[in-house]
Amino acid sequence: MEQELTVKQAAQARRSIRKYTDEAISDQTIRDLITTAGLAPSPWNLQPWRIIAVKDDETKAKLMAAAYGQPQVGASAVTFVIYTDMTDTLDNVENTIHPGMKEQEAAVAKQVRDHFASYSESDFHWWGRAQAYTFMGFLMLAAQAEGYATSGMLGFVPDQVKELFGLPDHVQIPALVALGRPAEDGFPHYRHDFDQFSKIV
Amino acid sequence: MEQELTVKQAAQARRSIRKYTDEAISDQTIRDLITTAGLAPSPWNLQPWRIIAVKDDETKAKLMAAAYGQPQVGASAVTFVIYTDMTDTLDNVENTIHPGMKEQEAAVAKQVRDHFASYSESDFHWWGRAQAYTFMGFLMLAAQAEGYATSGMLGFVPDQVKELFGLPDHVQIPALVALGRPAEDGFPHYRHDFDQFSKIV
Repeated sequence: MEQELTVKQAAQARRSIRKYTDEAISDQTIRDLITTAGLAPSPWNLQPWRIIAVKDDETKAKLMAAAYGQPQVGASAVTFVIYTDMTDTLDNVENTIHPGMKEQEAAVAKQVRDHFASYSESDFHWWGRAQAYTFMGFLMLAAQAEGYATSGMLGFVPDQVKELFGLPDHVQIPALVALGRPAEDGFPHYRHDFDQFSKIV
Repeated sequence: MEQELTVKQAAQARRSIRKYTDEAISDQTIRDLITTAGLAPSPWNLQPWRIIAVKDDETKAKLMAAAYGQPQVGASAVTFVIYTDMTDTLDNVENTIHPGMKEQEAAVAKQVRDHFASYSESDFHWWGRAQAYTFMGFLMLAAQAEGYATSGMLGFVPDQVKELFGLPDHVQIPALVALGRPAEDGFPHYRHDFDQFSKIV
C-alpha cells in the first residue's frame, strides 16, 4: 500500500473532482472513512450528523435526479448524503455524554436542552447543520489521504432527497459528497492571500 | 523534525485539550497552519471565513474575559477567532472566482448574488457561518499533524468579541480555537457506533 498523506499533503492535493474511474469501493473502506470523519469534534460531543453512503447504482441514479442531474453523483464509487437531525440529537443527548462524565449526566443533558430552548426553530436546525461541515472537512481529508477524490455539492432539491430516503421533514442536508478514484486533474487551488482574510495580533 | 501525522492518525490522536505548555509559536507556523486550513473547499470558492490569530498576552486576556474566563483562551500559544462576513464575501465575489473561469466571471458573480437574494438575513449569515466549520476541521487536523493540540469553543459573548476587534455587527463568530503544545492527556474519544449514525445502501 502506498504511504498515506499527511494532513498538509492531503489539503494541498485535494481538488473538487467530478470524474472518477470505475474502481469500486469496499464497504469496509467506507466504514473506515466514516469512522475517521466521525472523530470530528462537536459541542457537547453531540455529533448531530447522520450519513447515508449510497453505493447502489439505481439509488445513485435517483439521487442524481434529485441533484439536477449532476453526473458526479452517479459516476462516483459512493456518494454520501450528509444530513443532520437535531430533534433526534436532543432526544438522545444522554447517549453522547462521555462515560467519564457519567455522574453529571443528568445535569449536562439538562444544560444542553436548556441551551437550545431559547433558539428559534430555524437557528436550532442551522446550528446542527453547521456542525456537519466539520465532519465533512474530516471526511474529505481522510479520503484524499487514501487516494480518493471528492466533490462537495449544495445543488440538490432537499425535499426530493428526503423523500428518496424516507427522512423526516425537519432534517437538514448540509451537503452531498461524491467520492471515487480521480479521472481528471481538476483546477489548481485559488485562494485568498493570507493578508486578505487573516491577521496575527 | 518528527514525522507529521497522516489524516487518520491526526483524527485519532486529536482530543479537546485545554492545558498547554508555555512553548511559543512562531508567526510563520501560524501562517502555515492558516494557509493549509484555507485550502478547505467552499461553494463557489467563496471562502467566507476570516481569521484573527491572537498571540499577544494582553489581547488574549481580554478575549478570555469575553469567553466567560475559560482558561484555555489565555493559556494557549495562540487563540484563533474564526468569524465569517457574508457582506464582505458578496462584495468581493469577483476576487474569489477562479482565473480559469475569467470569461464567465460576470455571469458567475451574478449567479452567486442572485442565489442569496432570496435568503432571509438570518439564513444568509448562517450559510457563511456554517462553511467556516470546514475550515475549522482542516485547521484542527493540520495543527494535530504537527503536534499541536486544539480546543474549539462556542462559549463566548459575540458582541464583546466583536467590540474587542472592531468587527462589524453583522459578522458571525462560529468558533474560537485555542492551540498549543498539550500539557494534559484529554478524554479518549467517545463517539456514536457506526450503525447509530450511518448506513450503506
